[in-house]
Amino acid sequence: MNWINQSIKKTCYSSLEKAQEQQNQLTKPAGSLGYLENIVMRLASMQACQKPSLDKAQISIFAADHGIANEGVSAFPQAVTNTMVANFASGGAAISVLAKAHNATLEIINVGVVDCVSDGILHQPIADGTANFSQQAAMTVNQLEQALEIGRQAIDRLTNTDVFIGGEMGIANTTSASALACAILKSPIEQLVGAGTGANQQGIIKKQRLIEQALELHKEHLNSPLKILQYLGGFEIAALVGAYIRCGQLGIPVIIDGFISTVAALIAVRIHSSLNDWFFYGHQSEELGHKNVLKALDARPILNLAMRLGEGSGAAMALPILRASCELHNNMASFNEAGISV
Amino acid sequence: MNWINQSIKKTCYSSLEKAQEQQNQLTKPAGSLGYLENIVMRLASMQACQKPSLDKAQISIFAADHGIANEGVSAFPQAVTNTMVANFASGGAAISVLAKAHNATLEIINVGVVDCVSDGILHQPIADGTANFSQQAAMTVNQLEQALEIGRQAIDRLTNTDVFIGGEMGIANTTSASALACAILKSPIEQLVGAGTGANQQGIIKKQRLIEQALELHKEHLNSPLKILQYLGGFEIAALVGAYIRCGQLGIPVIIDGFISTVAALIAVRIHSSLNDWFFYGHQSEELGHKNVLKALDARPILNLAMRLGEGSGAAMALPILRASCELHNNMASFNEAGISV
Repeated sequence: MNWINQSIKKTCYSSLEKAQEQQNQLTKPAGSLGYLENIVMRLASMQACQKPSLDKAQISIFAADHGIANEGVSAFPQAVTNTMVANFASGGAAISVLAKAHNATLEIINVGVVDCVSDGILHQPIADGTANFSQQAAMTVNQLEQALEIGRQAIDRLTNTDVFIGGEMGIANTTSASALACAILKSPIEQLVGAGTGANQQGIIKKQRLIEQALELHKEHLNSPLKILQYLGGFEIAALVGAYIRCGQLGIPVIIDGFISTVAALIAVRIHSSLNDWFFYGHQSEELGHKNVLKALDARPILNLAMRLGEGSGAAMALPILRASCELHNNMASFNEAGISV
Repeated sequence: MNWINQSIKKTCYSSLEKAQEQQNQLTKPAGSLGYLENIVMRLASMQACQKPSLDKAQISIFAADHGIANEGVSAFPQAVTNTMVANFASGGAAISVLAKAHNATLEIINVGVVDCVSDGILHQPIADGTANFSQQAAMTVNQLEQALEIGRQAIDRLTNTDVFIGGEMGIANTTSASALACAILKSPIEQLVGAGTGANQQGIIKKQRLIEQALELHKEHLNSPLKILQYLGGFEIAALVGAYIRCGQLGIPVIIDGFISTVAALIAVRIHSSLNDWFFYGHQSEELGHKNVLKALDARPILNLAMRLGEGSGAAMALPILRASCELHNNMASFNEAGISV
């Protein structure tokens, strides 16, 4: 686990300044590309070059099951995790379609899906799902380390990747993410527990009660981001945390997806605060807690399309926006080139 | 001008219903693609087919000068209209870069730019800019008709276009658009007059005073959308109105751009209220009045990136979002195909 503590790469301020200088020369009123200018300048600082690009995009989806699903917290049965993982691999899921449409490489990693033997998936199962965190710790220390390590490896095997998107699949993982957010932020439970894939008001209240009980049960252990992750998290969420940390260590820009991914980002940032320099937040989802977790991260989401699907889909939707910011920055004429004196 | 009164094509409700039925079968929690589902279902109703597509996108930029520029309302001199038009044609402007990046056809139409003789542009100048509307009507009735007709022709010459984006260029045209919005909406001037390309507080107050004076001067004539357009508009704004109306008559979906384009859309909708069925609103810009004009149109902008450039650039940024909604709708697996029972 020593790798977790390795330092986060510093972004390059002089590249940001050079990119800013270039932006100021482009044929448009100063600042008129708004947030796109901020995006491309941050990318310049991350890629340490004046003209950043996002040609090579990687989407990695981590999937696992959750013991808490036994409590009936999801609108879908646990077996759907397995079926959806097969659907990712065969190209029928939203993220599969978006990866193809946006020319991104897609990898699916089974970190602990019950009965999962589909082709086209990297199988690295830790167990048949986590334990039910309303009764015991979701994972052992050893399982947490394995999950983080699987995330790290997913980044270490990339070559020349310009941008990373992590996604997740796991029936009941909104419940796990809500519990994690409650433990980290210590905010009122009503601000962080929402409908997930489609729970009704009764279902939401049930989730809240379960989470309150779990927070009480484990309270003496919930004293660090990693301990919180071990007691309340999921294998796929821990793998995302490991992947995000590794991206920051190696200097790969990340687009964070929705509620569950953002909770993983929150945990990663609580371990290394400078990690936020490497993150873009792709969208604000409809899941109730997302807005509040984004606020805690001082994040400005790029899109707000009322999506609530997960799988990395909201982050993938933001990819063309980031790419367009690069296209504009790299290919617009300068005032000088256009013969405009300012 | 009889063509203006031709009826707007009706969208196809049964195609919308079929598309809705298809959406309900896709492998995702119901409604989890949020606003993307609304977009694709509206597109289905416009294209009268269950699986809409936006492969062939057309961007047409209308450019003209404004007599009101003589009052010093813009941060840039009038000659910049001409230079920027040349920049559009030579590929250096933001919209040129976005058109190329998003595989859209770009046409630039000179409707009245002073001294404009650049290559690569369709020259249909009505006059050397409009008259100064703080002193007289911006256009004659005949000039208004010409401008609307140029917009109509720009649509009539398209073949098999799946979606239309109109853009504008014209130094001082934010002032014209603000005056138009004030006359149409009768809202307080402070809600509709903003910084344009970069006026300071003093400049904004000057614009407000000029617009108040013009509204007073022309008040007995400002009794219909077309009269308001004639007295306070610009040739490029009138051409946009003509183009938008023609899109509705022929049944071509439109993505509306920022403040100036949205004011043109407002005028078009005040002429034919059902035109709004054919419009998507690409983004909400930073220009102060845009939010209020969008509200008057009951419009939900797709993006909010703090852009304020015009040229059709915000609408072009939204194109990949609309396209992705089609990709998802057309290519995701159904629950049945994925072997998920619901």
